[in-house]
Amino acid sequence: MGHNLLKNKKGLIFGALNDLSIAWKVAERAHDEGAEIVLTNTPIALRMGTIDELAQKISAKVIAADATKISDLEELFKQTMEHFGGKVDFILHSIGMSPNVRKKIPYDDINYENFLKTIDISAISFHKMIQVAKKFDAINEWGSIVALTYIAAQRTLFEYNDMADAKAALESIARSFGYIYGRQKRIRINTISQSPTPTTAGMGVKGFSGLMDFTERMSPLGNASAQECAAYCITLFSDLTRKVTMQNLYHDGGFSSMGMSARAMEMYNKSLECKDCKENPLNKTE
Amino acid sequence: MGHNLLKNKKGLIFGALNDLSIAWKVAERAHDEGAEIVLTNTPIALRMGTIDELAQKISAKVIAADATKISDLEELFKQTMEHFGGKVDFILHSIGMSPNVRKKIPYDDINYENFLKTIDISAISFHKMIQVAKKFDAINEWGSIVALTYIAAQRTLFEYNDMADAKAALESIARSFGYIYGRQKRIRINTISQSPTPTTAGMGVKGFSGLMDFTERMSPLGNASAQECAAYCITLFSDLTRKVTMQNLYHDGGFSSMGMSARAMEMYNKSLECKDCKENPLNKTE
Amino acid sequence: MGHNLLKNKKGLIFGALNDLSIAWKVAERAHDEGAEIVLTNTPIALRMGTIDELAQKISAKVIAADATKISDLEELFKQTMEHFGGKVDFILHSIGMSPNVRKKIPYDDINYENFLKTIDISAISFHKMIQVAKKFDAINEWGSIVALTYIAAQRTLFEYNDMADAKAALESIARSFGYIYGRQKRIRINTISQSPTPTTAGMGVKGFSGLMDFTERMSPLGNASAQECAAYCITLFSDLTRKVTMQNLYHDGGFSSMGMSARAMEMYNKSLECKDCKENPLNKTE
Amino acid sequence: MGHNLLKNKKGLIFGALNDLSIAWKVAERAHDEGAEIVLTNTPIALRMGTIDELAQKISAKVIAADATKISDLEELFKQTMEHFGGKVDFILHSIGMSPNVRKKIPYDDINYENFLKTIDISAISFHKMIQVAKKFDAINEWGSIVALTYIAAQRTLFEYNDMADAKAALESIARSFGYIYGRQKRIRINTISQSPTPTTAGMGVKGFSGLMDFTERMSPLGNASAQECAAYCITLFSDLTRKVTMQNLYHDGGFSSMGMSARAMEMYNKSLECKDCKENPLNKTE
Repeated sequence: MGHNLLKNKKGLIFGALNDLSIAWKVAERAHDEGAEIVLTNTPIALRMGTIDELAQKISAKVIAADATKISDLEELFKQTMEHFGGKVDFILHSIGMSPNVRKKIPYDDINYENFLKTIDISAISFHKMIQVAKKFDAINEWGSIVALTYIAAQRTLFEYNDMADAKAALESIARSFGYIYGRQKRIRINTISQSPTPTTAGMGVKGFSGLMDFTERMSPLGNASAQECAAYCITLFSDLTRKVTMQNLYHDGGFSSMGMSARAMEMYNKSLECKDCKENPLNKTE
Repeated sequence: MGHNLLKNKKGLIFGALNDLSIAWKVAERAHDEGAEIVLTNTPIALRMGTIDELAQKISAKVIAADATKISDLEELFKQTMEHFGGKVDFILHSIGMSPNVRKKIPYDDINYENFLKTIDISAISFHKMIQVAKKFDAINEWGSIVALTYIAAQRTLFEYNDMADAKAALESIARSFGYIYGRQKRIRINTISQSPTPTTAGMGVKGFSGLMDFTERMSPLGNASAQECAAYCITLFSDLTRKVTMQNLYHDGGFSSMGMSARAMEMYNKSLECKDCKENPLNKTE
Repeated sequence: MGHNLLKNKKGLIFGALNDLSIAWKVAERAHDEGAEIVLTNTPIALRMGTIDELAQKISAKVIAADATKISDLEELFKQTMEHFGGKVDFILHSIGMSPNVRKKIPYDDINYENFLKTIDISAISFHKMIQVAKKFDAINEWGSIVALTYIAAQRTLFEYNDMADAKAALESIARSFGYIYGRQKRIRINTISQSPTPTTAGMGVKGFSGLMDFTERMSPLGNASAQECAAYCITLFSDLTRKVTMQNLYHDGGFSSMGMSARAMEMYNKSLECKDCKENPLNKTE
Repeated sequence: MGHNLLKNKKGLIFGALNDLSIAWKVAERAHDEGAEIVLTNTPIALRMGTIDELAQKISAKVIAADATKISDLEELFKQTMEHFGGKVDFILHSIGMSPNVRKKIPYDDINYENFLKTIDISAISFHKMIQVAKKFDAINEWGSIVALTYIAAQRTLFEYNDMADAKAALESIARSFGYIYGRQKRIRINTISQSPTPTTAGMGVKGFSGLMDFTERMSPLGNASAQECAAYCITLFSDLTRKVTMQNLYHDGGFSSMGMSARAMEMYNKSLECKDCKENPLNKTE
């Protein structure tokens, strides 16, 4: 089913855990399009997930690396270039974690050590990955780097906590480094702002299923799936998008450009009309 | 209760119909802050509304003018300057009307003569007003022009129809003319993007009350009232905001920066849980 | 060199004049990717340009139509569907013209009949094209519509005049209709905001070459060419971007995300240092 | 010259160093408007700057505090509330520092310990300040919090380095906490994105004077001064803007909405025309 869009291209993909992961789907799809792949994740994620299954399926090499550690990243790029016998053409960053979210620490009682970890893991790891790649001159001219992000960077969603701030920093790093890497090596850096997606990480967020129903009804094309996100990533890795850089690109069925849809409003209005709902006080949640 | 923020300033206010109108509240508040006011609206709006009551209350002169007609605008500025014995310091544009909305013509069966009227009345009238003012050199240096707009210019709301496109054009005119009038005469031009407001015009929009409930729950500070919008206008007319120009300023209790609030989600989720709602098919509305 | 990305797809392309036109490059590239094409432009553009050369090269049919006339558009879609023996899969709108710009009428002395024409030709033609397509049910499910736009819709450029406002309206129409066409027929509508491009229309804008030098130096990847824009359009017509809709997508080498580059600043600073420049008063231009 | 806009209000102002500081001007202006003020800065800044002069002038109390230290902030709020005999009404955050910028470490050779410090000082200090205030219930209902930021958060400027990413995080924190503090206590949180300003910090940035000339010519109203920024802050602290929250507000003479002005283009074009400039190779800077 591929179009050989990534023929002769080599890619490095961070963040595949299991077959729900967007990074997993991207790797599969990139393989279908003719690319060779190296997969990487933290040692613990490699143990907990099922990445070997994917590696076998797409003949990819797996290299363990903690993307917050420079030495790990250096070793990763060294081994990746050895494996490929040359530079890579594209990189996917699909990494994010907030200890505050995990431990259900509210945003107004945040632990600051955790906050710095959230930013280090979810945003600065992107800078580290790029800085190390640039030092190793590990990316071919006109290469493409993509990180996955979420609209919480622009619009607050309850319970998303410090991940919102981390995503804002991540998107800024894409711009800041996109300027430098672009002018020097013609390498582009963008972020894809994806619909809420039922990955292992996504489903861990409180209130996720209600939110997905809402965004599904708000978005004229419905939520975008992991599979669809993978297809979109392919366009950004391909040579068809060489002059797109420093952008945050919404891949969300239109959600980001909606104020209110008839379908979501209709569902919302039901709660205004139904007797049960009326009996509940307006401001129960605070 | 005023602070004399607009002492010695003269203002021209378009679009007050009755005491629900934002323009009405702005005129009152500007008067409280020490400004002298000229009120204007179309002849028919003057007849249908209660503007004379306001004029009396704040000792304002009323001049009829159709803001889509250059000759009316010329006459308006001529009379206004005669009345004031000089130039004006601030202008409010609170004008919008879509014949397609009024006649309930859907956006995908739009009447194009109407569409051009929507744009002429709701957007180009702003350009006309400014162009005539500039030709008459009717505004003092460091004067301030404000138009009211709505978030539909950025994010689609069902039923808002071609008014969304007109508001987008209106906001663009503020930028385009803001550049020219700014560099030449130090006059600033901004738009205020206001919460849905229960004015005579607002309440005419289908589904308005459900929308207001939703935006009330989404906005951490709740919807902004007409009264509060008037207070915000005062800051933009005052000398405290001289370097703010070409901006679209949200005055909406935070709505524009929200993705999802706990309160709105809770209300939404009720509809997912209640039996009646479940019995209804997902896609009833199309 | 194609990847069969548009195999079995049929496209309708508005606005190719000559081989400098972006629409021309898009048609060529879409053909390379396996699409069948119908080309359309106004009768006068067909006479003045060289579209027959293109039509022959890519075996396309040419149908004359004025995109501001509903009857022309109806005839166009009728003939296009007959020619293809079915619906189309993608449409490109590359249409824009301002009589005020052409006649060098400044923005603060604008002719309003011209202004409405600018909006009718450059923005509402997009709505008309889509409305007629929808009435004829002329687009397959998951079809894709793209219009070309310019960053002047967000940021004022001297001399761009009322085209800025028209582009803002155009982008709004993409959102407004994107919602409706998306929820009903899974058809996506986006705009591409392209670098200044030396087309026949582009080069007609006063000060174009200085602006292109500036944007070239500001953009880390340099200005995007018509050819590159064509490649980007292919991604949006392909099945790889099915969930991207209601977006304005910058294709500009990074310009839109730049505040100031070292290269542009260096060039700018030269003028501050050179003796000739210093002798000129600061505010010569007004 | 004041209007008693802040009569009976109490404010806490972070970041005044000397009379070039925006925070200094804000304190003066707030005092003129009737507010009582507590000034705070780090012990070292208190020693190096001239804050006592300001304190005397406006009868303010000075309390030393390092805004990155929770214990300092707790002590600060405790003492501030004791001093005032009650809660505060407004807070200004004017804090930013990047060790990477100071040490001229380029963005693509960044030191990550420094990067975390940049974020901790320039962004997370804002969260800390708000979290401590909230725990102490130190702000009256309808209070107002403002942080100063810069357009580098949206658009990359060479040499601005990791401060861009920190400002992006800062603005996100304003939204994230604005939601929580708004819904619970009606307290609004906004950021002001100010023109480049010749403060002690600003003037330390490489290439600052060339940049200021460029932004001066790009902005139709010219750059906004520290004094003017202070006036704008007053509006946000006053009761006239109660429903403005979670916004990033440009106070920049229109710069943020400009693509290219005639004045800046004219200056830029001079370098294209002057002989010296032509002799220099295009890409000297990399």
